[in-house]
This record gives sequence, structure tokens and C-alpha cells, in this order.
Amino acid sequence: MIKFQQIGTIHSPFKETAGMPIQPAGAEGVCGTIEILPEFSEGLKDLEGFSHLILIYHFHQVRERKLSVTPFMDTKKRGVFATRAPMRPNPIGLSIVKLLTVKGNKLDIENVDMLDNTPLLDIKPYVPEFDHQQEVRTGWLEKFRNKVHNHISDDRFKHPE
Amino acid sequence: MIKFQQIGTIHSPFKETAGMPIQPAGAEGVCGTIEILPEFSEGLKDLEGFSHLILIYHFHQVRERKLSVTPFMDTKKRGVFATRAPMRPNPIGLSIVKLLTVKGNKLDIENVDMLDNTPLLDIKPYVPEFDHQQEVRTGWLEKFRNKVHNHISDDRFKHPE
Repeated sequence: MIKFQQIGTIHSPFKETAGMPIQPAGAEGVCGTIEILPEFSEGLKDLEGFSHLILIYHFHQVRERKLSVTPFMDTKKRGVFATRAPMRPNPIGLSIVKLLTVKGNKLDIENVDMLDNTPLLDIKPYVPEFDHQQEVRTGWLEKFRNKVHNHISDDRFKHPE
Repeated sequence: MIKFQQIGTIHSPFKETAGMPIQPAGAEGVCGTIEILPEFSEGLKDLEGFSHLILIYHFHQVRERKLSVTPFMDTKKRGVFATRAPMRPNPIGLSIVKLLTVKGNKLDIENVDMLDNTPLLDIKPYVPEFDHQQEVRTGWLEKFRNKVHNHISDDRFKHPE
């Protein structure tokens, strides 16, 4: 077991999983805030120079783990590591958002596709030289790629109450 | 505390931190393998259609946590969240690698910048519609960006023996 600690909280307009955008690409213009715990705010220095952040967070509403899932954009079961579905062996989420402003331990962000009160684990600056790939193939997703921008989730990943 | 489990192991030519490439961009052509624990191999289905994978892993050699670090490419202290340095409050690593082949529970990968025996936490498919950002600013890194491809690490993030 590897243990991590919450470094802050992501606030968003999404109070439940149904109806959410499935990725930041479908959440264009959706604003949110990050509140970093005061003991970590020293680590935010120099962040305001970056336009985009990679957020790593905990899919805290996910209770089930699956190795095969039917992704939102598909009707077939796929191996979970070939999808971005939240019900993964480790429910770790990754989204790239726009950074608008940094004020003390609060960050205003845009293109937010997380649930409200999502526990944040890490922030990394997005750097095209590290993170942008070319000549990319995307397997089963290939025929769905142009649909990403207007796709929203249904409740298939809702955890059992 | 949020607990995650190791889903596999990343094997690479790098046995120690000094001399490593600092990012996959500096590790072009460096090959490695991922061995997924057999109980998770069902989740690899459909992965072979993707050319690039996002790997999320544990910086298992990091013992210290810092909020301000002097990154490899710089001489000034920076807030750790404005860097990709491993000594973060949660030592979570993220690299995008090329996927060459999938054979059973083994993946051959390229552009490997992790230490040998790195514990893997998650694999996500790289999807340009989700992960590629445009009009990007990169703060303090701006003037170092063209140096990324030939930069290797020194031992400043080596953990105390």
C-alpha cells in the first residue's frame, strides 16, 4: 500500500456525477477553484507564470473497482487501462485545466470536469515539451474523438448508495 | 490518508537517479518494460491500439518532501508545484511514454525516464483531445524549454542513504 495525503480541495459546479462533462475538453469555460491547505501554500510560488496545470486527484466518490468498463463514449466493454473511466484499480484522476489566477492559497481554474469537493493530490505545470505528443493513435477512441467536446456523463459510474 | 496499491513494475536501464533523463523528452529511444501484476492484466485489453500512455507512478526512492526546490534546469528556488521535481508532498510521478507492444501482462515502452523497479499506480491512454493544450505559457521554464531534450539529472534529488 502506498499512502498519499490530500493537499487541497477542488471546488466545482458539479455536485453529482450524472450530467458532468467527461473530460476538461467537454468542460470549456466551466470555472472552479482550488483551495490548497495552508501548510502547502509555499509550494505554489512561481505557479502563476503557467497557463495550464496538470491536476492529479482522488476519484473520491468511486467505491467499486473494475477491470473492464463500458466507457461513456462507447457501447463495448474495454480494458479499464484503455479508458479514462474513474472505476480503476487506483481511482486516480488526471485533468489538465487552465490556470486563471493565484491568490494566496486559492487558485481560480477553468475547464473543470471534477466533482465538487474532490481531494487534490498533486499539481504539476503543463509543459508542451514534456506533455505534448505527436503522431498519436488512440485505438477504440479513434472514431469517437470528434465527439469529445459535447459529451456528458450519464450515471453509469455512480457509486451504489 | 488515501491509499493506493501497486499495479505493476516499470523496468528501465536507470539503476540510480544521477545521470537519468529528467523527462521522457530527454529519454527519446530509451526502452523499458512494464510488468503488470497478473490480477490486473484483464484491464490491459484494447490498450494495444494506443500509441502513447500516461503512466502514473510512485517516486519510490524519494524520502524527503520539499515545498521549494531548485529544479535541474534552473539555479533559483521554485515552488515545488511549479516544477516536476520528485520531492513533492505526494511523490507521484507522471510520464507520457510510447507503447511499442503488449504481450500478455508485459508492455514494451519507449522514452522511459523512470528508475528501474518503479512501482506503477495507473495507466491511462493519451488522447490529444483531452491532453493536448494550446497557447501555453510556462513561467520560469520558458527560457529553458529548448534545453529539455538534452538535459540529464545530477544527484540533487538523491535520497540520503
